[in-house]
Amino acid sequence: MTHVGAFTLEQTDGAARAGVLQTAHGPVHTPVFMPVGTRATVKCLTPADLVAAKTQIVLSNTYHLALRPGEELIRQFGGLHRFMAWDGPILTDSGGYQVFSLSDLKKISEDGVTFRSHIDGDLVHFTPERVIEIQAALGSDIIMPLDECVAYPCEESVAREAADRTVRWLARSARAKRNDDQILFAIVQGGTHAELRVTCAQQMVEMNLPGYAIGGLSVGEGHRQMIDTLGVTVEHLPSDRPRYLMGVGLPLDVIESVALGVDMFDCVIPTRNARNGMAFTSTGRIKITREEYRTAEEPLDATCACYTCATFSRGYLRHLFAVDEYIARPLLTLHNVTFYNRLLADAREAIRAGAFETYRKKIRDRYEETN
Amino acid sequence: MTHVGAFTLEQTDGAARAGVLQTAHGPVHTPVFMPVGTRATVKCLTPADLVAAKTQIVLSNTYHLALRPGEELIRQFGGLHRFMAWDGPILTDSGGYQVFSLSDLKKISEDGVTFRSHIDGDLVHFTPERVIEIQAALGSDIIMPLDECVAYPCEESVAREAADRTVRWLARSARAKRNDDQILFAIVQGGTHAELRVTCAQQMVEMNLPGYAIGGLSVGEGHRQMIDTLGVTVEHLPSDRPRYLMGVGLPLDVIESVALGVDMFDCVIPTRNARNGMAFTSTGRIKITREEYRTAEEPLDATCACYTCATFSRGYLRHLFAVDEYIARPLLTLHNVTFYNRLLADAREAIRAGAFETYRKKIRDRYEETN
Repeated sequence: MTHVGAFTLEQTDGAARAGVLQTAHGPVHTPVFMPVGTRATVKCLTPADLVAAKTQIVLSNTYHLALRPGEELIRQFGGLHRFMAWDGPILTDSGGYQVFSLSDLKKISEDGVTFRSHIDGDLVHFTPERVIEIQAALGSDIIMPLDECVAYPCEESVAREAADRTVRWLARSARAKRNDDQILFAIVQGGTHAELRVTCAQQMVEMNLPGYAIGGLSVGEGHRQMIDTLGVTVEHLPSDRPRYLMGVGLPLDVIESVALGVDMFDCVIPTRNARNGMAFTSTGRIKITREEYRTAEEPLDATCACYTCATFSRGYLRHLFAVDEYIARPLLTLHNVTFYNRLLADAREAIRAGAFETYRKKIRDRYEETN
Repeated sequence: MTHVGAFTLEQTDGAARAGVLQTAHGPVHTPVFMPVGTRATVKCLTPADLVAAKTQIVLSNTYHLALRPGEELIRQFGGLHRFMAWDGPILTDSGGYQVFSLSDLKKISEDGVTFRSHIDGDLVHFTPERVIEIQAALGSDIIMPLDECVAYPCEESVAREAADRTVRWLARSARAKRNDDQILFAIVQGGTHAELRVTCAQQMVEMNLPGYAIGGLSVGEGHRQMIDTLGVTVEHLPSDRPRYLMGVGLPLDVIESVALGVDMFDCVIPTRNARNGMAFTSTGRIKITREEYRTAEEPLDATCACYTCATFSRGYLRHLFAVDEYIARPLLTLHNVTFYNRLLADAREAIRAGAFETYRKKIRDRYEETN
């Protein structure tokens, strides 16, 4: 019996890794993609859909849930798992990123951050301790500490101050955590400044956390600079802990990051793009709303086993978007989430078979142009 | 082996009837409710959802499909069943009602009706023959003839002219029909004028159609006048043919109509009201968006076996509506369609058991206030 938070590295292939992370709601086989369920639901999908798409773990958001419906209500319902009827593992983001991207006023002090709710404009104060407390009420399996994100580009002095504060906030978060069933990750910051990333990573590794996230990327720096920064950061993370690249990304971003040794991902791209009519397929991306698909009798992706691909033609899906029918978006979302889950499951299989470089090249050939 | 269009009356209880109608895509057990799939999809539901909700037959619309995507495209896809991936029976409405309710200009002549498309303003001409031709391309199981609806209230002379023309159009429709796998119903018109209804019904019965619809009701005349007009009309329809009350209605309307001997129903109420947060339950209607459901841990309807009721609390569903999450509407739609299908299945069971009056009283007690 392995304990909650234990990470077993099963196989490596170059820097790419296949592993298993134990959570209170079961194991997570890595590399893994986590569909985003910001407000206690992955947009357009039911828990049954998530299971059918072979989802292992979903991400939800501390900031959004604290504002609506409030963590106290969710606690009354027996926690987030019962509230949203998802019995698998859940990771909750700290809300640090959302405070910086969604709210108007934000006043940062050593104590924490004060911001205006993007919903009603009310003043809200988050501290590292408060964010841990909210997540304790939610009962999520993997919890994230309050961190300070910086924009891109960002001067080194500003990025340094934010990274240093994030380190101090992590220490407070670790002290505030009470629940042994919850796994607290660190979030490495430092913008695109390699030295800051290294220092931040080293300081956090000294705190001996069960997992390490890389935050503050995919904020406009572009694929190349993201990969460079990621590479520098990952080198300074312990190999026996899971590594989670936050908010990334397109298929090529994901697979190139797996190649660097990243284990976990979340991103709104598969779900958001689906709602805009964009589907990921084994032969590249397609925009289903295009006229050329009007008479197309083949499925979105002939190699995909999802309900959408097993049931409907591209022509029918195009019709649903053309007349703006409700079910259009759920059907494409189901497909895209299935695609991403398979993208990572296939990566894992390739790593275990020692064939990751071949797989990586295949993905690069298909997705380089459209990345 | 019974032929397509055959209707077997299995049991009567007072005027209420339980029967079976044979279609090219299987039998329909009556009384039956048909969810509305205007544009080749029941709003918010997949075919798998419809099956889970125990849907026997869906309704789609000739007018909408002829405009978008066009019946020719659907024919290329192998017909409406294959296009929308619904292998059960389909009834297509003629579009007569939509021409009168949705389009701007309409010029009626003996030949047919000319109207402006509600989508692009193009002039479109429908004749009885054209409407049969469109439905031949769609390949629906039960097809409806072009009819002329009148508004409520309507002077007798105007209603008479429309009803007489509808009779003549029915004769042309019957002559135009080629496909033996399709079942052509008549549509009795005549507004709320009892004599017109009787005359119209008698003339149509002479044409010996396999089914009789009652059109032009639920257009503002109210429950009492609808039931009165319906009662007069049904008396003049043959007992060995199915009777279909078009566009009706609330649970009480439906059950009171079953009591008069109606076998088939369609209505947007369960699907449209679901999208507005209104759920039908075994104890009456509820508006899930109300504050009182914020902390409610029970399901929408504890007696319902649908996925929504088996999985989620009222409090969670209220949260989904409060934050305007996409999945909220599909979840309530699934429940309401399940509810309506069960309402009719239970009515059928009660009729077969000789207990329909008890069932009718139960529904009246629960739904009289909110009708």
